[in-house]
Amino acid sequence: MSLIIGIDPGSRLTGYGIIKKEGQKLSFVDAGTIRTETTEMPERLKRIFAGVDRIVKFHGPTEAAVEQVFMAQNPDSALKLGQARGAAIAALVNLDLQVAEYTARQIKQSVVGYGAADKEQVQMMVMKLLNLSIKPQSDAADALAAAICHAHASGSMSKLAVLNALGGMARGRSRNSSRRR
Amino acid sequence: MSLIIGIDPGSRLTGYGIIKKEGQKLSFVDAGTIRTETTEMPERLKRIFAGVDRIVKFHGPTEAAVEQVFMAQNPDSALKLGQARGAAIAALVNLDLQVAEYTARQIKQSVVGYGAADKEQVQMMVMKLLNLSIKPQSDAADALAAAICHAHASGSMSKLAVLNALGGMARGRSRNSSRRR
Repeated sequence: MSLIIGIDPGSRLTGYGIIKKEGQKLSFVDAGTIRTETTEMPERLKRIFAGVDRIVKFHGPTEAAVEQVFMAQNPDSALKLGQARGAAIAALVNLDLQVAEYTARQIKQSVVGYGAADKEQVQMMVMKLLNLSIKPQSDAADALAAAICHAHASGSMSKLAVLNALGGMARGRSRNSSRRR
Repeated sequence: MSLIIGIDPGSRLTGYGIIKKEGQKLSFVDAGTIRTETTEMPERLKRIFAGVDRIVKFHGPTEAAVEQVFMAQNPDSALKLGQARGAAIAALVNLDLQVAEYTARQIKQSVVGYGAADKEQVQMMVMKLLNLSIKPQSDAADALAAAICHAHASGSMSKLAVLNALGGMARGRSRNSSRRR
């Protein structure tokens, strides 16, 4: 059994989601958003750090996943997003969690089965996979999706390890490439 | 007496500097760099956070200053710098320090007396103002410069606060004569 936390950092809203993985079974534990609107930047970062710190201490996840960012936007928003990510990831690593990063494409591929899926499709599949009766808020859904992607990836990594043990990287690689599109 | 920490965050090198302010007198306490080269991003952020955390706990500064960034560069470097800033500022605010931000121009104006001064001039003036016999490394000098700028700024802010308390700028000017009565 492992608990996985997913984080979707943002300078205004940081989504978080915790799932439990038992064998191949995934279940919902917690999800929500840390709201940091209407405050000064250092205060925002404090809330993000303290929020993630509190959630990790409360649930005690053993693995963490964050969406990797490839910015095509302007430097100003990249700086703001970077600061939020920095505070969130600092809270995770400060509590000795290893942080895995996945691109948005990898996460959508893993959760929806389609790398260019839209937010609505991600929300619906997160509901389905975790058996939720209520649609989670969009940032919380993205955080849960990152956690699900990590659960799948660490599952396939275990499989990979088995494959590698059975016959080397070449066979393992060909399996892994099916995740890319 | 107050201790001021200045931080110059960067994804590879984060400079820090601590100065003591007694009345109008500034003196050097400590300075250096947190090196984060050649490691993965989450590990880098961990080192920045842990480094700043350790320095603050060791010296116990009561005020903090960080250079404000107006990026004209590309989104990718803005994101990396943002993450480093986020981790560094999270460490400061997590220990309940208020973080003041100053633009590079404000810092140079305050330290060198010229807003477009170059790095060399900042280093030389930092040496002069703090009575150093060795030229500090460039990022450490920038961090010390941010702290000096804050010392100057909070000095004039204190004066302003006194003036305001006495009834505004105009009456403030005649403060000395009213005191003699």
